[in-house]
Amino acid sequence: MLKHNLTPLSNFLQFHSKASNHLFPLARISSSSSHSQSKMEATSYMFGPYKIDKKEVFYSTDFSYALVNLRPLLPGHVLVCPRREVQRFAELTTDETSDLWITAQKVGKQLESYHKASSLTFTIQDGPQAGQTVPHVHIHIIPRKSGDFEKNDEIYDALDVKEKEMKQSLDLDKERKDRSIEEMADEADEYRKLF
Amino acid sequence: MLKHNLTPLSNFLQFHSKASNHLFPLARISSSSSHSQSKMEATSYMFGPYKIDKKEVFYSTDFSYALVNLRPLLPGHVLVCPRREVQRFAELTTDETSDLWITAQKVGKQLESYHKASSLTFTIQDGPQAGQTVPHVHIHIIPRKSGDFEKNDEIYDALDVKEKEMKQSLDLDKERKDRSIEEMADEADEYRKLF
Repeated sequence: MLKHNLTPLSNFLQFHSKASNHLFPLARISSSSSHSQSKMEATSYMFGPYKIDKKEVFYSTDFSYALVNLRPLLPGHVLVCPRREVQRFAELTTDETSDLWITAQKVGKQLESYHKASSLTFTIQDGPQAGQTVPHVHIHIIPRKSGDFEKNDEIYDALDVKEKEMKQSLDLDKERKDRSIEEMADEADEYRKLF
Repeated sequence: MLKHNLTPLSNFLQFHSKASNHLFPLARISSSSSHSQSKMEATSYMFGPYKIDKKEVFYSTDFSYALVNLRPLLPGHVLVCPRREVQRFAELTTDETSDLWITAQKVGKQLESYHKASSLTFTIQDGPQAGQTVPHVHIHIIPRKSGDFEKNDEIYDALDVKEKEMKQSLDLDKERKDRSIEEMADEADEYRKLF
């Protein structure tokens, strides 16, 4: 894990230049029972206006799905989204809200253990004034370790930059000089085994 | 709303010196039905090892409660906690997890509207390496407006300082030269009307 001794933004960029990069993918799963991640089918997932490759989705339920990141802040930084595209958290039904957070709880627990971390950051930037760039509710889950960022709060500086970059990458649909789809699919394959 | 043009920590301190301050209180409610905030009784709430005055609790259910802050980062910055004292999010049962987030959703929606904000920040610092100071799960909910912090991510710098201050205040049980219990009770009274 990297140590950061610069300003938050510099920290992030320093980390970013060394870390593997990736983005946000998903793919609609037509599973019939809750938590039936194994039943993934060929349909794709939507993340706001963007279509996400199902290879990047490592867990899903009837209402929610979890995907790896094109550009994780730290190892195991993933997203959990409702399947239904809504911008604001308050638009989710109680079933969707419950399922989203039970999914996040399960995903966080497994990834913390997998990455030998000792804490987790859970954040929703709910609306543009909170830093949201893609208008589809998403929980950031970030496994945390002692010393991963010099000051704990720097994780959020970096998170904010990530949101902006994500939007840019998705918009431009650029040719992934970030992390390759293969690399992301490999990570998702690893995580899939945890559930 | 204040504009911040300094470093994150200076920002926070600048804001802090101008804003009303408060802390974390709570009080056990022996309600029998869910979302029965009106049935508050004389028992007290626990926030980790600390006893919280029920006057500072403005909403509660069988599993969760919402309380005003001794030192809010921004107007409407409140906390939502499970009634049962557990340190880590993964320790909550599915009923507790669902109820906690349905409560947070409801509280966030009302406070965003009450404070004429347009977005919300929801965060759990789940474990010490994520910035948690009081070992009892708590969601920070912060209504957000355009320009409330110069850069969105500064809210998190400030949040981190708040966590540390909260712990300090609770530990020292100091005589509240922060915000008075009366001031906090008044705020809680206002919020109680929203539910």
